Amino acid sequence: HSEKLLEPNLTLASSAVVRERGRSWGGLLSGIISLNILILGCALVSASAFNNSIIGSAELQIFLIILILLTTIWMLYYAIYMSVKDQAVTYKDGHAGPIWLRGGLVLFGLLSLIMDIFKIASYVGYLHCDSAVKVAFPVIQAVFILVQTYFLWIHAKDCAQLQRNITRCGLMLTLGTNLVIWMTLVTEESLHQTTIPEYPNKTKIYDKVPDNELNTANDKCKCSHSSCSMFKDAYYYLYPFNIEYSLFASAMAYVMWKNVGRKADEHHHHSVKFRVKDVFLGPIAGILLVIAGLATFIVYEVEVLKDDDDDDRLDRALMMHFVMNVVIVTLMSVSTMVGCVIHRLDQREYVSEKNPTRNLDVGLLIGASMGQFIISYFSIVATAAAGGKGYLNGLNLAWGVLTVIQLGLQNFFIIEGLHREPFHEEHPITVFTNPYVLEASRELSSLEGSDMDTKPSPVLTTHTLSHRPKLTWKRRVLKEVCAFLLLANIILWIMPAFGARPQFDHDVEIKFYKFSVWAAVVNIGLPFGIFYRMHSVASLFEVFVTS
Amino acid sequence: HSEKLLEPNLTLASSAVVRERGRSWGGLLSGIISLNILILGCALVSASAFNNSIIGSAELQIFLIILILLTTIWMLYYAIYMSVKDQAVTYKDGHAGPIWLRGGLVLFGLLSLIMDIFKIASYVGYLHCDSAVKVAFPVIQAVFILVQTYFLWIHAKDCAQLQRNITRCGLMLTLGTNLVIWMTLVTEESLHQTTIPEYPNKTKIYDKVPDNELNTANDKCKCSHSSCSMFKDAYYYLYPFNIEYSLFASAMAYVMWKNVGRKADEHHHHSVKFRVKDVFLGPIAGILLVIAGLATFIVYEVEVLKDDDDDDRLDRALMMHFVMNVVIVTLMSVSTMVGCVIHRLDQREYVSEKNPTRNLDVGLLIGASMGQFIISYFSIVATAAAGGKGYLNGLNLAWGVLTVIQLGLQNFFIIEGLHREPFHEEHPITVFTNPYVLEASRELSSLEGSDMDTKPSPVLTTHTLSHRPKLTWKRRVLKEVCAFLLLANIILWIMPAFGARPQFDHDVEIKFYKFSVWAAVVNIGLPFGIFYRMHSVASLFEVFVTS
Repeated sequence: HSEKLLEPNLTLASSAVVRERGRSWGGLLSGIISLNILILGCALVSASAFNNSIIGSAELQIFLIILILLTTIWMLYYAIYMSVKDQAVTYKDGHAGPIWLRGGLVLFGLLSLIMDIFKIASYVGYLHCDSAVKVAFPVIQAVFILVQTYFLWIHAKDCAQLQRNITRCGLMLTLGTNLVIWMTLVTEESLHQTTIPEYPNKTKIYDKVPDNELNTANDKCKCSHSSCSMFKDAYYYLYPFNIEYSLFASAMAYVMWKNVGRKADEHHHHSVKFRVKDVFLGPIAGILLVIAGLATFIVYEVEVLKDDDDDDRLDRALMMHFVMNVVIVTLMSVSTMVGCVIHRLDQREYVSEKNPTRNLDVGLLIGASMGQFIISYFSIVATAAAGGKGYLNGLNLAWGVLTVIQLGLQNFFIIEGLHREPFHEEHPITVFTNPYVLEASRELSSLEGSDMDTKPSPVLTTHTLSHRPKLTWKRRVLKEVCAFLLLANIILWIMPAFGARPQFDHDVEIKFYKFSVWAAVVNIGLPFGIFYRMHSVASLFEVFVTS
Repeated sequence: HSEKLLEPNLTLASSAVVRERGRSWGGLLSGIISLNILILGCALVSASAFNNSIIGSAELQIFLIILILLTTIWMLYYAIYMSVKDQAVTYKDGHAGPIWLRGGLVLFGLLSLIMDIFKIASYVGYLHCDSAVKVAFPVIQAVFILVQTYFLWIHAKDCAQLQRNITRCGLMLTLGTNLVIWMTLVTEESLHQTTIPEYPNKTKIYDKVPDNELNTANDKCKCSHSSCSMFKDAYYYLYPFNIEYSLFASAMAYVMWKNVGRKADEHHHHSVKFRVKDVFLGPIAGILLVIAGLATFIVYEVEVLKDDDDDDRLDRALMMHFVMNVVIVTLMSVSTMVGCVIHRLDQREYVSEKNPTRNLDVGLLIGASMGQFIISYFSIVATAAAGGKGYLNGLNLAWGVLTVIQLGLQNFFIIEGLHREPFHEEHPITVFTNPYVLEASRELSSLEGSDMDTKPSPVLTTHTLSHRPKLTWKRRVLKEVCAFLLLANIILWIMPAFGARPQFDHDVEIKFYKFSVWAAVVNIGLPFGIFYRMHSVASLFEVFVTS
């Protein structure tokens, strides 16, 4: 009779095995697929960059078109499948795809679409003497951007439960495609800057451009309409936005992949309101900084874009930009240090439960900060080797060192802040809201043999109090620091995002490394740096709200 | 009276908070430290590689010396502290620092020491006209290798519990130092190959070496003793072993860092014996393959190292080497596929408990396989672009494609194998050893209100049976496949580890990419590939034992 009793248990066990097996197979297979796409893409990009046109960009574009078509088909399939099966996605991850990420995706997607239109208009002029793939590619890319933006906007929060293996593979395909596009764009941008210098004082240094890096096919082929070069200038100006778009899409695809099959617990939305009244000094100082930064940024851009060869004027503009940046970064470092000290003094508990979304968030933050770190360290080494001669070198060196310090401190501050429990206002009175105590008392009662299923829900009701007491000085200072840092990160985001490239206007690094090396470092690092500033703003907002 | 009751619970809670806080601070700080070391090292290495000797290798070596001294001091401090405090390490991770890793460390450490001795002997001849740092560096490095090898041999399994933050920072310092040394070595090796070609048929392609990549300082400075060039040749031959040593040390430091503060559960050592009797076909085929591989490898090396310029002879040697590799990889792919099918048919359960050491192991395996993947894909693109003209190109292409397939399949097979429960011999009789059933019945009893603390220990006694039944055909085939793959991986390890570089003897890739790009790809990828083969052997042995 014991065998009969076991039967339902066995089915239960075997379904668990099937679930586990599915997870292992799908995750592994999708990982291997994306690995292969990435490395093959890397090889093709290197071939098109370093090779004397045996493999031109056309072959790379055919590979990209295949990838894009496959990804688009899968995304459409997923969207349709999900809309047909009403209860397909029951779990949503509230933290995934936050509004800044989706908003940024749409913004950069729009600018990428404009870039594609300019590209099409420009390449149509070459149709009579160049490959048709060059026109086909931007058309297909435009469709891809539309579909992908829609897909990620709607489904970014999904924790897919059905067809998990196919979904995993599809998401890894999406990730791989976006990263290969990113590699291609970064390489094209760097080659373009190397062959056709667009910054006024670069021509002085590199008059002679190596011939083998010029796209020899295009030189013989003349454009058939007159506005060709205008479109070309325009679309190269929009390249950085497309690079940013690929990074955003990659990050979102990765988060979705991590969430496949996850049974996300319903996040009890904190009813914490964003009250500006609580803070005063931080926002005021921050807004003043943003205004000052914007003013110097505009003056700097205007001076740099002027076409005459007045070196003194350029140096003055650069000095102003450097001084402004040094001031911003110094103020940020000091206030972050204050924030860290407050965190140290603070008695708040660390969040004890594991939270995969938060870990992912922290990983993305640190990973993105690597970009700025790399640029700063390369800059430090170059300026230090130049011996700090001249005030521009000194300022550049100071900027590099201070940026490294600021990045380290800010990472530390944000991660510490995200790992703290929200403030409990009524701390001395409602001592039972301390989760550790709750747990301990639960353990006590379980020892007495009580039923585990009737345990009290751990949702704490600390934020439902209607009267708000005055903030303690620690909370107040933390909030001021967060608000100031948030605004400072916004201005540090605006400057590179809208075209400031002091890295190419100042020639120490270009002379020290070769131009192509320095262009590669900046073109890889800066988009991550821009992503990092946006991510920091969002994280600081979260720290502001919970502290 | 309720406050009195809560007091012990509060102390309990606050100690938990302290523990959590310590973990967060230490982990974060150590991560930021190693990040900074790495990026600064990367900038310095790039500067010394791409720069026209404003920053020579001397500055980089001073940075390395500082890093090495700090690391050495910390390692000595840790070793002494641990020997003084007897009960400092109570937990050991049985899976960390397996014998193949420690054995490899000692082997490569010895060869690195010999390299350092040759280096010292060679640089002493330049002392009268070159920087003394160049002699100081190998001396310090030799001491470092001795201390580090001792440290890792003794402490690789530690799960440090005391001074966790200092230990974390120290281990990250160790990791950073080893990776910076690795970067330096790879760069030096690539530059050396670019400037002084040591492969017979490379000179044909690159007669003119770019001047700015020559170490101009050394050209004016003549060596004062006659055996200088001999030592130089010898130490460059030993470079790959030092690169391998850095990778091994990095992997072990990373595993130790992950284990800091971990309360490892005592691993109940499986009493499974390694019985060769069970298998027959796999080992025989494997040994035949190893012998054939060794024979062709020796012939190939002898032919390549001959100094005359007979192209036909070289091509014949290359063809033999390619054919041998294609045969090996094809046989491996087929047998791996058989193994995967068996896994698919198999009814064994997946291991349900989370095991951080295994996850780390799998991560290292996949990460290391990237190296071989990158080389193969770059080779595929180059040979495919050349159109497969000539039998050598065709063989090279086939080798690349088959290697990619083999790597993917082998990763899949090993990971699947590691995630399975060991075979339970007495399956039909002792049905209760199925852990899922056990759990289900436990759940049943818990519903009846029984005490959770008296649950039966989940240790299963399946391996204590004294009589061994005949193996099922599935187990038999799995074991044969594992044994064959294990031996095949050994021969694929031997060839590159002991100097086979068909990547430089065949000129398609060198012509397609520039030589410096291809040298960088091979010099970065190949050491990871060698590491991967050793790791695979160890993992396959584990799969062999548990299946």
